[in-house]
Amino acid sequence: MGKKPAQKLSRREFFEKGHLYYLTHLSIDNVIFGFHDNQLKVLLLEWKDTRRWCLPGGFILKGEHIEEAAIRVLHQRTGLNNIYLQQFYAFGDPNRERSKHGIEPPLEVKNKSWLTERFVSIGYWALVEFSKVVPKPDEFSETCQWWDIDKVPTLILDHNNILEKALDSLRRNLNDYPVGRDLLPPKFTMPELQRMYETILDKQLDRRNFQKKMLALDILERLNERKQGGAHKAPFLYRFDQRKYEKAMKQGLRIGLQ
Amino acid sequence: MGKKPAQKLSRREFFEKGHLYYLTHLSIDNVIFGFHDNQLKVLLLEWKDTRRWCLPGGFILKGEHIEEAAIRVLHQRTGLNNIYLQQFYAFGDPNRERSKHGIEPPLEVKNKSWLTERFVSIGYWALVEFSKVVPKPDEFSETCQWWDIDKVPTLILDHNNILEKALDSLRRNLNDYPVGRDLLPPKFTMPELQRMYETILDKQLDRRNFQKKMLALDILERLNERKQGGAHKAPFLYRFDQRKYEKAMKQGLRIGLQ
Repeated sequence: MGKKPAQKLSRREFFEKGHLYYLTHLSIDNVIFGFHDNQLKVLLLEWKDTRRWCLPGGFILKGEHIEEAAIRVLHQRTGLNNIYLQQFYAFGDPNRERSKHGIEPPLEVKNKSWLTERFVSIGYWALVEFSKVVPKPDEFSETCQWWDIDKVPTLILDHNNILEKALDSLRRNLNDYPVGRDLLPPKFTMPELQRMYETILDKQLDRRNFQKKMLALDILERLNERKQGGAHKAPFLYRFDQRKYEKAMKQGLRIGLQ
Repeated sequence: MGKKPAQKLSRREFFEKGHLYYLTHLSIDNVIFGFHDNQLKVLLLEWKDTRRWCLPGGFILKGEHIEEAAIRVLHQRTGLNNIYLQQFYAFGDPNRERSKHGIEPPLEVKNKSWLTERFVSIGYWALVEFSKVVPKPDEFSETCQWWDIDKVPTLILDHNNILEKALDSLRRNLNDYPVGRDLLPPKFTMPELQRMYETILDKQLDRRNFQKKMLALDILERLNERKQGGAHKAPFLYRFDQRKYEKAMKQGLRIGLQ
């Protein structure tokens, strides 16, 4: 772990002395996806000063692995541990901070701060179980809440672009690796699995074709149990075969061109 | 572009004053792949001082886009322009510099240098046409040359790890995007295309199956021409259909689960 400040820095100290503890020019942005009511969602923060929305992000302690930093930020915002985090891209346009909102230095800070310099931000996405998350705003923000992916407002800096790139990466990931264990409840129906894929891909899929392809992946186990709820023909419940799921996470769903 | 030093910095000035021109804590490493004699190759530099091998890398000017920096480094090493560069990962282990070789500060540099601090390195890979490259060593290095991918020696820092991760990314890319336009000559045979895939994937592929899959991608055009060279049954020549290739580069070879 990095050399942490002995005590929590005030906002002014953070502006004036943060560079003694954190790497300059480098930040982390986390795109935290959840799934609820058949809808893909993303966790956003609202800045106190400007009431503008942003991705939950943070900085990297001098001795900290960048992935540790991403995990720490994720934990601070969601209370969750042991989450699968995927690094997807580093954002390095020198103009990405042109419209830097919400982190103006406090008025009493006279000197140029490390925080007003250029930052290259490393993006991670995570899939988390919606029901287990207790969103927590940080000291710079008013609110922390889930947004439907298709209703996300204009975010600060290049955060809409970062979100878009994270979605691209997640969609591409669907082709190569299994997805769902962290988004769905332990038991789910085939229509629920399909709606998860549909909300991520933002398109309708053919029911029969979807079921055929999913079963062909050989990571699902059909239970001798049907979904409760009084429907005329209740659908079967499935769960992921943990061993096969793990194996597919390591090897990928398609190995090369064989 | 970034604020460049008015004149080329000496080695000593680079250690003492480089941080006035370049972003601290951040570097670029390029994994430059080429294909020759049916063999995937990678371009490596040899440090003058230690005679150890490394990936060609560099730093980011204060006002420079990280991708511009990668392109600049690539151009300096290969003389090539207009090369497709793919960012694949940021390497941020605080211990990746433990065994920092070859960039000890010159003896006359008394103070701690920005170069002896920790660096997070952003990796890019590029596919280049072997025959067009004129490898150029930089001022810190003795030699710049192509190595067969399976004969790469122990490299400095975590560069073997960076190379491995670049290969993973390139292999995964084969599933999602067309590859070959930058590695093969404009006209090539099906066996040549197959050997390119085989050397990247490091495994044998079934000839019939390969041909079937390649043709199904619908990016190849078969010419009414056979490879010269006196073989008993000369194979047909193919080329990429530029329009379809471009389209596949944008949309991917498989779009979601449809």
